[in-house]
Amino acid sequence: MSGIATSENQSIVTVCGGSSAVVLVCEHASAFIPEGLKGLGLSEADRLSHAAWDPGAMAVAERMAAELDAVLVASNVSRLVYDCNRPPEAPDAMPAQSEVIVVPGNADLSEADRAERARRYYAPFRAALAQEVATVAAPVIVTIHSFTRVFHGQPRTVEIGVLHDSDTRLADAMLDSAARHTLLNVQRNAPYGPEDRVTHTLREHALPGGHPNVMIEIRNDLIATEAQQQSIAAMLAGWVREALETVQGGRDA
Amino acid sequence: MSGIATSENQSIVTVCGGSSAVVLVCEHASAFIPEGLKGLGLSEADRLSHAAWDPGAMAVAERMAAELDAVLVASNVSRLVYDCNRPPEAPDAMPAQSEVIVVPGNADLSEADRAERARRYYAPFRAALAQEVATVAAPVIVTIHSFTRVFHGQPRTVEIGVLHDSDTRLADAMLDSAARHTLLNVQRNAPYGPEDRVTHTLREHALPGGHPNVMIEIRNDLIATEAQQQSIAAMLAGWVREALETVQGGRDA
Repeated sequence: MSGIATSENQSIVTVCGGSSAVVLVCEHASAFIPEGLKGLGLSEADRLSHAAWDPGAMAVAERMAAELDAVLVASNVSRLVYDCNRPPEAPDAMPAQSEVIVVPGNADLSEADRAERARRYYAPFRAALAQEVATVAAPVIVTIHSFTRVFHGQPRTVEIGVLHDSDTRLADAMLDSAARHTLLNVQRNAPYGPEDRVTHTLREHALPGGHPNVMIEIRNDLIATEAQQQSIAAMLAGWVREALETVQGGRDA
Repeated sequence: MSGIATSENQSIVTVCGGSSAVVLVCEHASAFIPEGLKGLGLSEADRLSHAAWDPGAMAVAERMAAELDAVLVASNVSRLVYDCNRPPEAPDAMPAQSEVIVVPGNADLSEADRAERARRYYAPFRAALAQEVATVAAPVIVTIHSFTRVFHGQPRTVEIGVLHDSDTRLADAMLDSAARHTLLNVQRNAPYGPEDRVTHTLREHALPGGHPNVMIEIRNDLIATEAQQQSIAAMLAGWVREALETVQGGRDA
């Protein structure tokens, strides 16, 4: 037996039930770093920063799940331990640096170390999501993320990003109807896009089956409080619902 | 969209990491009944009784997981909603009666109702466990249960049951070494056994791959307090560890 005991028995993956066609995904729900990894050598501030997770995203996703009666699959492990929106072969699945933060615990990982990280922290998430996508009839995949207002010193003006990969249907419908749902600055494939390899979940779980899908990015200062999270979640739920009706030709989601 | 909103966003399945070969399983970890099922029509007392879950089992499993550095997969939904230690075709996967408790919400379930229950509450658990068993090298499956002291009015003298199906290796090793680990009344395949169809998890996840396995049943009055849970868990962890060494011919688990 290894001597590394996990005194915090935190579940690696969350799967919440729902009976609509929507499968919500939150890959960066938590800043949790399992005890055996010694905080990846980070300061406490870095461990809790947006580099480690998407602040507010899970709270929004949970409220959207309730509004939409959706399934919700989330990873409860920091993206610095394993970024569940990256395939195991991507260098930034276990980044040695994220924006300005150096991650000592990810320096010099061997192939075996990387395989073990993927096995422990990505495989359960991937399997749970694949399971839900396989069992929901005509699933629709919606991933929920947040991004920081200032990146490498540059402020970002986009407030909500609607991202897509090669299947633009649901993103198009959302962008067409944005003005009916929000006054926020909404942009397509911003603050980054598929060229930045951020659409892994869509590619892995939506595109092969032809399932409508979209990745929603929310600027994290807009979902910092519970009241903001609730209000954005309600808005997004109505927006996704309408866009889905458009995509599905009025068919009930 | 269905009108059934899940205001309680409870995860259906728990997967905790670990790096030893042991995969702990707790099928009856929780008495949670999702809101849409209206408590299955049960009184509050019945909803929290041993018919709904295995009191103490998850607390013991969590502590064993820490001691053994084991993976832990648990279902967080009441066994009255779906008993994850039963296949979907078993009548008692969604029992209309459990011991003396009638379950109104399980009366007259249609085939579609049963399929939907299995899809929502069993499939994620089954997939998560299958995933862990598939990715751990040479896995060992240990399921943790608790049972009531009095059943149908009859007190039970057995305190710890060591149960097995057709593969008796790990159970034999535990029974052979029981006296070194506990003064409790330990019995083989008691208070029930494979003939009562209680070894589904072992049959599904251990036997096909030839993985050593055992099902441990603890009388629930012995794990009612945190101190008891801690002490039984430490004892069981040491006992399982020794038995594994015997089965594996001294190989480190």
